[in-house]
Amino acid sequence: MTDYRPINLAAKLGLIHDHWSPRVVAEMNDYQFKLVKIQGDFIWHSHADTDETFIVLDGQLRIDFRDGAVHLSAGELFIVPKGVEHKPYAESEVQLMLIEPRGVLNTGEEGGERTAQNDVWI
Amino acid sequence: MTDYRPINLAAKLGLIHDHWSPRVVAEMNDYQFKLVKIQGDFIWHSHADTDETFIVLDGQLRIDFRDGAVHLSAGELFIVPKGVEHKPYAESEVQLMLIEPRGVLNTGEEGGERTAQNDVWI
Repeated sequence: MTDYRPINLAAKLGLIHDHWSPRVVAEMNDYQFKLVKIQGDFIWHSHADTDETFIVLDGQLRIDFRDGAVHLSAGELFIVPKGVEHKPYAESEVQLMLIEPRGVLNTGEEGGERTAQNDVWI
Repeated sequence: MTDYRPINLAAKLGLIHDHWSPRVVAEMNDYQFKLVKIQGDFIWHSHADTDETFIVLDGQLRIDFRDGAVHLSAGELFIVPKGVEHKPYAESEVQLMLIEPRGVLNTGEEGGERTAQNDVWI
């Protein structure tokens, strides 16, 4: 018998002690599920080649767009279409799951000092 | 200003009044996010060309494999690898989110009377 185990999102989040550094917890085909804690402001960026899924697990997330914003609470999902400039913002800490193809950087096409190390598993 | 709105998973689940009929709530590239309520036993099946992601939102899910089983509670995720035979089971009602490429049928390669209509949005 094989010992199959689920991935417990809260347990994995308990291993994360920093902000803005996504950790990979699972892969489906060439897509990755990433958990991240964020607080404060990020930078404007976009992902030219892919949509990006945000699922809020705890807290209140705002994603700014050039022509508006979306507000997400726990249990809410939003998919940022490819090529659309966006800027996440969290007044208090937010716990998030991101889903996107393997290899996508947190700063997208923008790069710079806020770029996190990619493909780090927990 | 554009009126951006998140997808509230609990609100969407409140629109589902049957079992074993996945409803699409969002698309990321060519992947779909589907919500479904299940209770009881399903059929053995597999998906030859794709992994399949299960995220339990409420209840206790068991997924049987030919050589074991995995038990998932709310907040837990499991990815069934492509080609692996599996059979979901829920003693009491389970609320699930499935993530898989557009066009994947609930009965995979198996077909038959338990095959749900595909690509139904709520």
